[in-house]
Amino acid sequence: MSIIGLIERKRDAGRLTPDEIQWIITEYTADRIPDYQMSSLLMAIFKEGLDRTELAAWTEAMLHSGDTLDFSHIAAAKVDKHSTGGVGDKVSIPLAPMVAACGVAVPMMSGRGLGHTGGTLDKLETIPGFRTALDPSEFTSILEQTGIVLAGQSESLVPADRRIYALRDASGTVPSIPLIASSIMSKKLAEGLDALVLDVKTGQGAFMKDFERARVLAETMVDIGRAHGTVVTGIITDMSQPLGRQVGNANEIAESVEVLVGGGPPDLLDVTFRLGEEMLLLAGITATAEEARLRLEETITSGSAFEKLIEVAVAQGGDPAVLENPALLARAPEEAVLSAPGSGYLSRADALAIGIAATRLGAGRERKDDEIDPGVGITVMAKIGDPVQRGEPLARIAWSDRGRFERAFALLEGAFAISDEPVEPPQLIQGEVR
Amino acid sequence: MSIIGLIERKRDAGRLTPDEIQWIITEYTADRIPDYQMSSLLMAIFKEGLDRTELAAWTEAMLHSGDTLDFSHIAAAKVDKHSTGGVGDKVSIPLAPMVAACGVAVPMMSGRGLGHTGGTLDKLETIPGFRTALDPSEFTSILEQTGIVLAGQSESLVPADRRIYALRDASGTVPSIPLIASSIMSKKLAEGLDALVLDVKTGQGAFMKDFERARVLAETMVDIGRAHGTVVTGIITDMSQPLGRQVGNANEIAESVEVLVGGGPPDLLDVTFRLGEEMLLLAGITATAEEARLRLEETITSGSAFEKLIEVAVAQGGDPAVLENPALLARAPEEAVLSAPGSGYLSRADALAIGIAATRLGAGRERKDDEIDPGVGITVMAKIGDPVQRGEPLARIAWSDRGRFERAFALLEGAFAISDEPVEPPQLIQGEVR
Repeated sequence: MSIIGLIERKRDAGRLTPDEIQWIITEYTADRIPDYQMSSLLMAIFKEGLDRTELAAWTEAMLHSGDTLDFSHIAAAKVDKHSTGGVGDKVSIPLAPMVAACGVAVPMMSGRGLGHTGGTLDKLETIPGFRTALDPSEFTSILEQTGIVLAGQSESLVPADRRIYALRDASGTVPSIPLIASSIMSKKLAEGLDALVLDVKTGQGAFMKDFERARVLAETMVDIGRAHGTVVTGIITDMSQPLGRQVGNANEIAESVEVLVGGGPPDLLDVTFRLGEEMLLLAGITATAEEARLRLEETITSGSAFEKLIEVAVAQGGDPAVLENPALLARAPEEAVLSAPGSGYLSRADALAIGIAATRLGAGRERKDDEIDPGVGITVMAKIGDPVQRGEPLARIAWSDRGRFERAFALLEGAFAISDEPVEPPQLIQGEVR
Repeated sequence: MSIIGLIERKRDAGRLTPDEIQWIITEYTADRIPDYQMSSLLMAIFKEGLDRTELAAWTEAMLHSGDTLDFSHIAAAKVDKHSTGGVGDKVSIPLAPMVAACGVAVPMMSGRGLGHTGGTLDKLETIPGFRTALDPSEFTSILEQTGIVLAGQSESLVPADRRIYALRDASGTVPSIPLIASSIMSKKLAEGLDALVLDVKTGQGAFMKDFERARVLAETMVDIGRAHGTVVTGIITDMSQPLGRQVGNANEIAESVEVLVGGGPPDLLDVTFRLGEEMLLLAGITATAEEARLRLEETITSGSAFEKLIEVAVAQGGDPAVLENPALLARAPEEAVLSAPGSGYLSRADALAIGIAATRLGAGRERKDDEIDPGVGITVMAKIGDPVQRGEPLARIAWSDRGRFERAFALLEGAFAISDEPVEPPQLIQGEVR
């Protein structure tokens, strides 16, 4: 096969066969196709797309580029959740133990924050001692033991995605729906799941800012799942404003614990429960969403979900003391308040600007090798539609470096807007694809 | 500036500013932009194009990426001709001395054969001793001395084009009109010309197979010339069948000499005279095409053009004996004949297939570092529209390696077709753009 011929065919809107796609991914991963040919092909794919058959083949080739996990010896249904990334999106942390407490095996592989979005691994690592880098055998044995594991993806899984993702990042080919969908799905399908629930974010703080593109991405991923024989549901949720009140790392662990002990802000609860219902349905634990909701509520009232979080934290080396008493979590030494400049109704709490402000504080990474500052963060005090009074706090900022704080604060001031007229809050759950 | 941002802008059909384009070419040539980013940008340009302003800036940046030539101290008008490449296209070899004999300075820089097309340098090098690799000072002094020089392009000219061309070749981005036009024009404009005549080939044996694309390419190059302040005319000529009768290297030198001593096939004469007329007009030597034609005919009848070829050959180290007596040129030891399988009218003499067959014989390069076999070649005995009799030779093949001959002959058989009905010959000169 000739890579140039295949690039030319895709460039001219032609189709690649499954064998050709398998060959491309294998040769690229083995360093026999150079980056400059792959980046040119990626740009051609960006412009011309991949059809359903090509995309299924591309994803299969990626997922078989390295090791895959096999949990078929675990009797429970294996179900994971994946979010396309947002601001204040700590859903995985309360959700995984709730679902696991209902008898689903949850082999959850998460990522780190990049750009303006947070990462579950960075949040979990604010639990002292918590190890997120597990080798496949340890990952499996924790899952067997506790029915839940919360870790990063092993280096041996889907090496093709790691290479292609880095190349896309450097070659202007990131926001392509087939490339995004195959990147996410190859990693998730390599986990050997029975089912997967996708939380596809839309709005200003999401990678897919408009609903239509979010819907197409969700459909594309559900389709890839179907081609692979794995049941996938996509729930499209709002990311125009941060989810919950806390944006940061340690403060998001604290808010996750709040949920598990019966509190937590309504929007975070709504998304967590909706995704949890879907996971229980797909796992076959309950037959209806209502029943699933009751089972999930029971995990809170009985304390079984919180115990599950403690159990998995301990299994992964974490100190449960900070979960029992979140006041022990890291907290930046300084605090500032952003006050409402007028009275009216909150009309904007821009998730993108707030996410970037949190990154500037040190909660995220501006460059890949930046260190996270676990205790900095932003607490968003009002939701879009809430009535606000002049002088009332819109956000509290926990910070540790003055220069960083000033860069963050300047951005944060512009992130909020107040309207004289009442404002309709955005719809939280915007659609579902199955 | 961020190369990723610029790739993204072009990818999304945006425009790049002249400063941004200058920066891209400078940084790429200096190895500060890696190949994988440039190839992704080239694919985006392939898909989205470059507008007139972008293309002028791209070409200027390329032409200033290395040394440029300056012949302003030579009083005569400096005019060159460039062909987009064809099969049997030896026009430069008789044309340059004819035009030079009329008082035009002809600093002709040519290329090597690649793919199915021949290269003027490979043909010239079948003259024993003829050196085509001249450094800029030698190039200039031969031009001053003789009014003509026939050489390859110096390594120090337009290094950006050499790198970008190699990358396009490897990344599936060759047949892009703006990239082809800027590649050709940056090299030609770096020669410090007063005017340029382009022979834009169209038809099966050309890179631009259809007339419409050839016309757009011609217009694009004329436009780039105008933006640079150099007068350019594009003549669109047929390449559905080989030009002249000889396809190879030494045999094309012999056919060029035929033209200069008053013979040569009519189609080769027509194209050579038409391009020569245009060169004399642009040089201001004559006011009308009719007058130019008379001047050019005079260079044949007086022998001045042939003397000019001998003069430049000697100046470049070549042995004039093979020009005086072309029977001394290299000739492959074996000969075969392809006979007409039936009677009728020749309806196809496919330039692409004949060009590939010649390459298989060893007249061209299948890979960049292949050696040319100077004496092999194909003599095409009939033109489209000619009546042919069963058994009459359609082509004579001079060969030296049986394996190569067999691969060539198999292809050659399918290159010709005979029709029962009379066939209209293709129009040789199809259009002009100025």
